[in-house]
This record gives sequence, structure tokens and C-alpha cells, in this order.
Amino acid sequence: VEPRGGGRGLRAAGIGWIAPWRHKLDGLGAAAAGRLIASAGLRVSSLCRGGFFPAPPGEREARAADNRRALEEAAELGGDVLVLVCGPPLGRDLAGARAEIAEGIERLCPAARELGVRLGIEPLHPMLVAERSAIVTLGEALDLAERFDPDTVGVIVDAYHVFWDPRLAEQLARAAGRILGFHVSDWVTPAGDLLASRALMGDGVIDLPGVRTLVEAAGYRGPIEVEVIDTKLAGRSGADVLAEVVERFSTHV
Amino acid sequence: VEPRGGGRGLRAAGIGWIAPWRHKLDGLGAAAAGRLIASAGLRVSSLCRGGFFPAPPGEREARAADNRRALEEAAELGGDVLVLVCGPPLGRDLAGARAEIAEGIERLCPAARELGVRLGIEPLHPMLVAERSAIVTLGEALDLAERFDPDTVGVIVDAYHVFWDPRLAEQLARAAGRILGFHVSDWVTPAGDLLASRALMGDGVIDLPGVRTLVEAAGYRGPIEVEVIDTKLAGRSGADVLAEVVERFSTHV
Repeated sequence: VEPRGGGRGLRAAGIGWIAPWRHKLDGLGAAAAGRLIASAGLRVSSLCRGGFFPAPPGEREARAADNRRALEEAAELGGDVLVLVCGPPLGRDLAGARAEIAEGIERLCPAARELGVRLGIEPLHPMLVAERSAIVTLGEALDLAERFDPDTVGVIVDAYHVFWDPRLAEQLARAAGRILGFHVSDWVTPAGDLLASRALMGDGVIDLPGVRTLVEAAGYRGPIEVEVIDTKLAGRSGADVLAEVVERFSTHV
Repeated sequence: VEPRGGGRGLRAAGIGWIAPWRHKLDGLGAAAAGRLIASAGLRVSSLCRGGFFPAPPGEREARAADNRRALEEAAELGGDVLVLVCGPPLGRDLAGARAEIAEGIERLCPAARELGVRLGIEPLHPMLVAERSAIVTLGEALDLAERFDPDTVGVIVDAYHVFWDPRLAEQLARAAGRILGFHVSDWVTPAGDLLASRALMGDGVIDLPGVRTLVEAAGYRGPIEVEVIDTKLAGRSGADVLAEVVERFSTHV
């Protein structure tokens, strides 16, 4: 649901939070979007996304500046969490990419503290390791986050990205005090397009109440973001999708 | 390459081993296939596959009998490793599926010992958790294997399935004495069909020499299986594909 419209519809449906994506703000600007969101009675749970740290040497400065700009936009929106999608390796060197990611986060920390925006490292599903993120397990995201102050760096738990992990319960217990966001959707079979098959909750195989129980046992009490990315929904009206999201959330999360 | 033809072509290309798939033996029989393979001067590195342990209660006996039959076929082929693709959960209960898998392996061990065939637990990529295997990391496969005698149960390391894992080096070091097979192919981007995108070595992003170094540092000296599953190769002749596999192996593994 884009911030331009629908804000009051969300509020009327009992939804108090929204998580904008940066590229959806183009042309409006973060400060104006923040005013629209606030005037609709909504709060910003997170801004998606900063990151993509591994870069050719000549592009690192521009990437760092863009990440700093993402932090400013999060603050202008009235949010206090920037989701980090950390980026894939440039070639075959996963270990090198992971080191570059750690350096990139370290470099971003002073601006994050200054702006009062926390950095949420989101581990993505391992199938996205070569296209979106070299950080692919919650354990690895926590190893990284624990190198920094918990007031500045934490993790985002997206059920779709982590549900498969045999160490999930153990790592969620460890994540206490570091969880900055919790995302839900569902994994359908047969798996389709890697980037457009995050189905409505209840359509797939993820034990969402089970994951939620673990997240809440780790002390997380913040908003839960519904992050469904499914081309099959594109033909339906926003109001129709919203009504179904609310129903699915109450039944399956 | 199917065992019916091409065996002497493999030998002439310097390849001494073949890993049949069970369903490719249909109509020929394992014993006859074993004689063909031996007469071509080849040895059987493994038989693919047993497993699929999670089953409705009414189907468990048939599944166990089929797994016992797979062990017999491995022995008839002259092989001593049966690859286990452990199977997905029936519903949303991953922990339950993992417990059923452990029970299924335990039940299969006496027949494996009796027939002199070892069980190789193959962790599959987490994107296949809901369709092929609830065992999705090398660490988890080792946790499972270590419950049994190393002469009976080990693991299969397939670079395609495990390359993404931030704990890979650590888990491969731990795997010393348990590695029963090593498979190579490559991961291409953008990722396509989940089951038919295992490309020729060198086409993708996996650091195959790096993985091979770790596997050999763990003491593995057995055959390396090329397991490419790529619909783009289907139109080419067996001899042509074989020549390219040999070239790619020498250059990229």
C-alpha cells in the first residue's frame, strides 16, 4: 500500500503502522511522505532499504553517501529503523563480501546514532545470496549485529527468509534485545519466481504462529509487517487486498 | 550419462566412476546395470536416491521397504553409498519432519550394515525445504549423521546446495571422516527453475576450487561427481556435453 493513498484505509482497518520502500517515495520526498503518513494517523515501522555494501572501489563512496541519505529519509519519515539488505558478492568471494558488509555497517553507525535511526540487518533466504544479500542466516546477522551497540544495530526477522533454518529457535532466543522488526508472508509450493512468490499468510507452509511465538518469547513487542510480494495480487483493488490481509493476519499469524 | 550407453566414452574421457539414478535403471534392473557398468571399466560412486522419510502413517512401511530395496540396488550395482534425499515435511511441522527423518535413518541402518552400503545424508539447498528435504544445512546433516556409526552413516557435500552457508568452512572441518561424496555444478544468476538450474562448472558464482580445498582438507579422497541439471544441455549430444564437462572440470574445479 503506497503512502500517497490508502493511509486512512489502513487506519480504519486497525493498522497503525506502515513500512515505506524508498523507491516508492520518488518524486514526493521523505519529509512530505512523512507528513502524509502522520496525518493519516499512521507511524513508520521501518524504511526499506539501505545496504548493498559490496561495491567496486570506485563506487563505494557513492554507495556510502546513498546509505547516509537513506538514514536521513528514515528520520524525515518519522521512522527509527532502516532495513539493511546487505548486498551480494561482486564475484565468487562470499567471505570478502561479508567482510565488506561489516565495514560498511561500521561506517554507517555514526550517522545512524546521530539521526536516531537504528540499522536492522535482514538476513535474506540463501537462494538470494548471489542477487541480494550475502547475509543469509539469522545466526550470521546476529554475529554481525553483536559487533555493534544494540542501540544502533539489530536484526530484522522475516519469516519467509528464515523459516527453513534448523537453528531458528536457538538463534531467535539469542536475538533477545536485537530484534528491530518482524515480517510475515508465506512460502508456497511449487516455488515460483524467487522475488515474487511471497504469498499471503495461510497460503503456504510456514508455521507463522510458531515463528511469532519465538519472536515474542525473545521480547519483541513492536509492529509486525506484512510483506507480501505476489504478482497474483496485482490485479485486485487495494481495499480488497487490505481486507484479505487483515483477515489472514488474524487467522494465520 | 545413462549406464545403457556411453560407458566406454566415459572411460576414454578419463572418468572412472558413475553415479546412477534409480529411476534411470527401470526396466534394466540394478544387477544387469551393474554388469554393464563394470564391463565398461567403471565403478559406482553412489546410487541416488533413498530417503523421503516423512510419510503419512499408512505409507511408512512401503517407504521403508522401498528404502531397503534402494540399498539392495546399490549393492547389486557394485556401489557402497546410497544418497539420502530426506524428504520435506508433510505439512508445516519442520521439527516433526526432522524427527521422522532421524527415525527413518535409524531404521535403515541394520540393512545398510548387512549390505555393506553406507548412507549419505545430502543436505539440500534451503529453497528445497518444502519440496525435497527438511535437511538443509551441512551442520544439520552432521548433527544427524553423528548419532550413528561413521561406518554406516555419513554426509554428501554438494557444492550447489551448501556454497551459500556462512558456516561452511567450519562444518566441512567438522565433517572429517563423514564425507561420503562430493558433487559439483554451478549456481547461475538470475536463478531460474529451482530444479533445473544446476549449471556447468564455471558458468556461475560458486568458488568450486575453494569448496574442493575444504573438502579435501577434511580428508576426502573419493570421486567427485559432476551433477549438472540444466535443461539448456538437453539439445546437445552426449559426447559433446561429456567433452565440455571434462574441460570445465579441469578448469573450474
